Amino acid sequence: MTEVRIGLVGVGWMGQAHAKAFKASPMYFGDDAVPVLEIVADATPELAEAGAKAVGCERWTADWREVVADPRVEVVDITTPNVTHAEIAIAAAQAGKHVYCEKPLAMNVAEARDMVAAVEAAGVLSLVGFNFTKNPIQGLARKMIDNGDLGDILLVRGWSDEDFGTDPNLPFTWRMDKAVAGTGALGDMASHALSLTQMLVGDITEVCGRMEIMIKERPLPLAVASGTGHLVEIGTEMRTVTTDDTVQFLCTFANGAPGVIEASRLATGRKQLLAYEIQGTKGALYFTQERQNEIQVYRDTDPAGERGYKTVYTGPEHPNYEPFNPMAAMQIGYNDLKTIEVHDLAVAVATGKPAEPDFGFGLKIMETIDAVALSAAERRWVRTDEV
Amino acid sequence: MTEVRIGLVGVGWMGQAHAKAFKASPMYFGDDAVPVLEIVADATPELAEAGAKAVGCERWTADWREVVADPRVEVVDITTPNVTHAEIAIAAAQAGKHVYCEKPLAMNVAEARDMVAAVEAAGVLSLVGFNFTKNPIQGLARKMIDNGDLGDILLVRGWSDEDFGTDPNLPFTWRMDKAVAGTGALGDMASHALSLTQMLVGDITEVCGRMEIMIKERPLPLAVASGTGHLVEIGTEMRTVTTDDTVQFLCTFANGAPGVIEASRLATGRKQLLAYEIQGTKGALYFTQERQNEIQVYRDTDPAGERGYKTVYTGPEHPNYEPFNPMAAMQIGYNDLKTIEVHDLAVAVATGKPAEPDFGFGLKIMETIDAVALSAAERRWVRTDEV
Amino acid sequence: MTEVRIGLVGVGWMGQAHAKAFKASPMYFGDDAVPVLEIVADATPELAEAGAKAVGCERWTADWREVVADPRVEVVDITTPNVTHAEIAIAAAQAGKHVYCEKPLAMNVAEARDMVAAVEAAGVLSLVGFNFTKNPIQGLARKMIDNGDLGDILLVRGWSDEDFGTDPNLPFTWRMDKAVAGTGALGDMASHALSLTQMLVGDITEVCGRMEIMIKERPLPLAVASGTGHLVEIGTEMRTVTTDDTVQFLCTFANGAPGVIEASRLATGRKQLLAYEIQGTKGALYFTQERQNEIQVYRDTDPAGERGYKTVYTGPEHPNYEPFNPMAAMQIGYNDLKTIEVHDLAVAVATGKPAEPDFGFGLKIMETIDAVALSAAERRWVRTDEV
Amino acid sequence: MTEVRIGLVGVGWMGQAHAKAFKASPMYFGDDAVPVLEIVADATPELAEAGAKAVGCERWTADWREVVADPRVEVVDITTPNVTHAEIAIAAAQAGKHVYCEKPLAMNVAEARDMVAAVEAAGVLSLVGFNFTKNPIQGLARKMIDNGDLGDILLVRGWSDEDFGTDPNLPFTWRMDKAVAGTGALGDMASHALSLTQMLVGDITEVCGRMEIMIKERPLPLAVASGTGHLVEIGTEMRTVTTDDTVQFLCTFANGAPGVIEASRLATGRKQLLAYEIQGTKGALYFTQERQNEIQVYRDTDPAGERGYKTVYTGPEHPNYEPFNPMAAMQIGYNDLKTIEVHDLAVAVATGKPAEPDFGFGLKIMETIDAVALSAAERRWVRTDEV
Repeated sequence: MTEVRIGLVGVGWMGQAHAKAFKASPMYFGDDAVPVLEIVADATPELAEAGAKAVGCERWTADWREVVADPRVEVVDITTPNVTHAEIAIAAAQAGKHVYCEKPLAMNVAEARDMVAAVEAAGVLSLVGFNFTKNPIQGLARKMIDNGDLGDILLVRGWSDEDFGTDPNLPFTWRMDKAVAGTGALGDMASHALSLTQMLVGDITEVCGRMEIMIKERPLPLAVASGTGHLVEIGTEMRTVTTDDTVQFLCTFANGAPGVIEASRLATGRKQLLAYEIQGTKGALYFTQERQNEIQVYRDTDPAGERGYKTVYTGPEHPNYEPFNPMAAMQIGYNDLKTIEVHDLAVAVATGKPAEPDFGFGLKIMETIDAVALSAAERRWVRTDEV
Repeated sequence: MTEVRIGLVGVGWMGQAHAKAFKASPMYFGDDAVPVLEIVADATPELAEAGAKAVGCERWTADWREVVADPRVEVVDITTPNVTHAEIAIAAAQAGKHVYCEKPLAMNVAEARDMVAAVEAAGVLSLVGFNFTKNPIQGLARKMIDNGDLGDILLVRGWSDEDFGTDPNLPFTWRMDKAVAGTGALGDMASHALSLTQMLVGDITEVCGRMEIMIKERPLPLAVASGTGHLVEIGTEMRTVTTDDTVQFLCTFANGAPGVIEASRLATGRKQLLAYEIQGTKGALYFTQERQNEIQVYRDTDPAGERGYKTVYTGPEHPNYEPFNPMAAMQIGYNDLKTIEVHDLAVAVATGKPAEPDFGFGLKIMETIDAVALSAAERRWVRTDEV
Repeated sequence: MTEVRIGLVGVGWMGQAHAKAFKASPMYFGDDAVPVLEIVADATPELAEAGAKAVGCERWTADWREVVADPRVEVVDITTPNVTHAEIAIAAAQAGKHVYCEKPLAMNVAEARDMVAAVEAAGVLSLVGFNFTKNPIQGLARKMIDNGDLGDILLVRGWSDEDFGTDPNLPFTWRMDKAVAGTGALGDMASHALSLTQMLVGDITEVCGRMEIMIKERPLPLAVASGTGHLVEIGTEMRTVTTDDTVQFLCTFANGAPGVIEASRLATGRKQLLAYEIQGTKGALYFTQERQNEIQVYRDTDPAGERGYKTVYTGPEHPNYEPFNPMAAMQIGYNDLKTIEVHDLAVAVATGKPAEPDFGFGLKIMETIDAVALSAAERRWVRTDEV
Repeated sequence: MTEVRIGLVGVGWMGQAHAKAFKASPMYFGDDAVPVLEIVADATPELAEAGAKAVGCERWTADWREVVADPRVEVVDITTPNVTHAEIAIAAAQAGKHVYCEKPLAMNVAEARDMVAAVEAAGVLSLVGFNFTKNPIQGLARKMIDNGDLGDILLVRGWSDEDFGTDPNLPFTWRMDKAVAGTGALGDMASHALSLTQMLVGDITEVCGRMEIMIKERPLPLAVASGTGHLVEIGTEMRTVTTDDTVQFLCTFANGAPGVIEASRLATGRKQLLAYEIQGTKGALYFTQERQNEIQVYRDTDPAGERGYKTVYTGPEHPNYEPFNPMAAMQIGYNDLKTIEVHDLAVAVATGKPAEPDFGFGLKIMETIDAVALSAAERRWVRTDEV
């Protein structure tokens, strides 16, 4: 059994999800490469201790630099708010640690470039937590596109629609604060749609977008709110929202295909419509996270009169499904995607072979995000190499 | 029985669809206002005679001016290529005829304004053939929005996706020729998505779009091709396509809601995905023409834990359904929508009350279309009052 | 142009639907064989005259024997309540008329056998109005099964679910009266599911079923109720329901495949779920009338990891679709199915070639119906050759 | 932290799934009641040792009686073939252990009665592994039915359709051997549909069914096959299948509602269509395990013209969902259902309050199963109190 020892910075909801995945990994993938939690950090001693207890980790600290400096730690895992990613990641890389960072990679392209430079200079591995790319059904999508089953790509659509924000009483959290989050729906949600479409179709070269803050202020919560904060009680004090509720943008992929990407936290009626549609000259795909165990597949090569979108359920033929279930359509869940992700991380560390999506990919996503933000601000088309 | 006598200009596929609807109208709506075909015209005597025979009309002409001048004709019905709409419509109005014109209304805003001015000056009625707005289920959508059931509109999406053009051997027809059609997917297809969303949500004030010709040339057909031309044999001679295969644009509605509208004749996998999604603070709607007898309805006011999109089938509670079927979900078809449209026309003529959508509405759509074309050409946001 | 002159007995909702279809037939199928309404009959002079006016027919009578005796009538078309079918059909055949009769063919197998004998003895054509079998998409289903694309049939399911009867205030109509209708959901609704599955898979050899009357009495309507009667006002007088609200039965097809067929007029939530699922060793089909312009197709021969049910929309490749629409998914409606049916009838009469489904097929359905009724009464398996 | 120590008998695929759930339980539900694996047993020392290693348990044995006798074991967990359930469970109860047993509970009603008697006599808790009943969305279904939101139940349908058996080369496993499995699709698969429908609607009082073995013999595998055996290589030797491939039956629930239940391992096209439809006078529900994170809800009390089936995704409002995900539609998977089940077990043991579904419920399912088997053999209706 090869253990990979992890120092986790941030033990809120997402950090705890990582910790669960570390424990689940050997249950499903065996002990060739087992992620093990060595120490956790959070902003205060109280948060750190409570988080450590929640995830069953004996060691904790309120100083993330202790994690970075810890000689037993091989991987620094960062789940703190976006504004802290770069500093921690760069310090970790400079300390010779592999770095595993939640998405979006950074506050902006400049930070992301520094992060990429740091891991490259240190020769350490990196991984960005775009866990939805780990869905076994995306393996089918990727194989079909790489095989040319879709032909030349004609159009790409991506959506990330949730309606948790439609309620005006949803409390203000760090995600609504530009200083801490960078952007709102764009970085938090569109980044997921970008991770799927850019993984499948490639880089984006130019964008033209718009962003709107439609609910201008929100009540402050009475306690620190984790995640989207929708379960926390609110008070009467209001605070101005400075990140986008919704974003839509046109774009062009490197292969010439036009695209449209949208995200909204006010998408009434949609719960997890993290979706894409990819149309090619020979076929097409449609996927939505609301039905993450299936994909819609269209092949223009089917006989005339019998062409149509086909519902294919995840099954043992798709990568990383069979460890969870022996038969198709038995369903994997959100947490299983994280388990696949951390297992990929552990295998990368154990073998020294790069994991994906790495910081280089995370930077590509940040370039799109920054270009969209600039485009929205200046109301013009922006090339991703401008930012 | 009140007859409304129609002179039909253009008896290709669409003209014949109108003629069928004239005959079907009294079968479903009784004889209060019955459209009757008086005379047909087409480009050549051969086409006109063949068309007349196909629709069972005794009189025909190769000169549309004869139709306009005919004292027995009360309504001039125009189904010829876009480039001819304005001239015929204006002549008809000036001759005191009501005018019924297929969509898109004109080649451009300038023509459309002249057409509106002509019908207003003449005091005649006008109707644009956006038949998809006549779907009974759109009556439900409209009622819900007008009642405020969706609250404030937060986002509007429209699509018009078909894949008839994906085959590179689809012959060149007038729709691919900018000089005759004006635009391609934009005017022909996005106009449908616009007719639905602008009817339901209101005017569009600004757009930012892109248009692409992805299949640069197409084989000329061996015979004159009607409709989309996909059933006609092709030769070896090629011709350059000058209208857009695909178009996507961002937009803003007069009420402030952002929107995204797309259309493509290369939308592999989609057959008639003329669809929209309208999200509001209290509810949302999704509709696609591929399933024209149903709509998806979401109400945020349903109890927590029991909210979701609901599939509502067309039924007797929706306007103009019951003449076709006594019970819900028995299904109406494409031609039934035309029947509703021509009945609305006949009632308008018989009663003197305006029909809708009229030329004023058609102009609004043309403003959006021209603004998008300008925006795509100049790669910038364009206000609809700029064109 | 070849006219086929029809005498229509019964001009309620269904009779009027026939009359519309006669007029629509040449609009879509041309004038090779044109059904023309010659005379109509109904139970009283008032009903007959009103019906004649509604369908635009000049001649009417309150005595169906006049229709049968009319030398100009080539086809007698029967849309009266089930109890009258046999007498009229047999008289028509004996008078040398072709016979077109609504489903279910008769009150029972004995009547149906007499009807088959009568048309055979007279050498006239017959047609039963199972219009749902005329759906172009059923042509695809039939071709696939006949080609062996599904392999050996393993299981057949049929449903006919509507919820118009769930309302206890739905008035009593002749369909609830055993003396006039024979059975309820069984003959009226399951017969449709049987028409589709027996057309596609073949005869049924044995059944075991149950029937229930769950709403024991219903209010009498204040006026004569046509169709399902759900639009008619009710009074306070109640009448005992004597036909089944719901029926379910197991069965065996002649090829050995087991089957389950169900029908209910109390199927809360289902509007026109006239559906079937046919599973074979190599493929499977699922269809529902609620989405009559599509079928779900599964092929076990697709590559592993890419197998799934495919949504195929009706299109020009399917029989009798293109007269209505040039492109796929443009949608046909309920009345279009009747148009196809009456055109098939007219072609049969014009050419002398048998139409289908004929009375022989209608008898097969009646055998299943009677066997189910006997099975339900005696709570045992019953062979269809027992009845 | 309260530990509940478990002795696991059978460490094949299902036993390992239990072991994973024991570990996952405290990750999601905290440490109030934590199931801990104490010892495992399997048929041979090799299987037991390999299984122990796979699940990370230090102690193993090839004699299940050792597990039963182990003083540290509080719960005996039985995942061995059906034929062994009764003997082990009864011995466990007699040794004062709580008993957790996979479904179906036993080979027949006689065994099941003895098992119920044993746990009652010993005063120990029991739980049957119908994990699909643990789906949070079933909590919504149950609440709606118990609240009367569906009104009186009019019809119940259940399906358990998979197509793993359609391949004639699927090897022979114990599930095809009547001596070891009792029945095939009936006990293995229909039992799931019964667990859901009987939990929601209540007991079944009579049945009339048919069972078929359609693939008469299958190749023996070259190695012992676990689960459905579809991943094991086959040899050339064939063995006769003695359990049913498909089963369909009519039934009556104690409240008078008719029902139809079906199961097939040859259900071409269906992967995990473990589904039900429940129609009541005021509403209806449809669920399928292929989309386990959603349910279709119909309320007849919605306004006329706006009634339809609604897709409700699992979310925090549904029991036991929030430990896995903070927001709706994030998806839980198959293994999460087992985690909920074993947590319920641990809570029951820790608190002494009964878990459900207990052996009494398992017996009710066995009564239905045996009644169906008798009904199919004798081709007649059978009351569940006959068996």
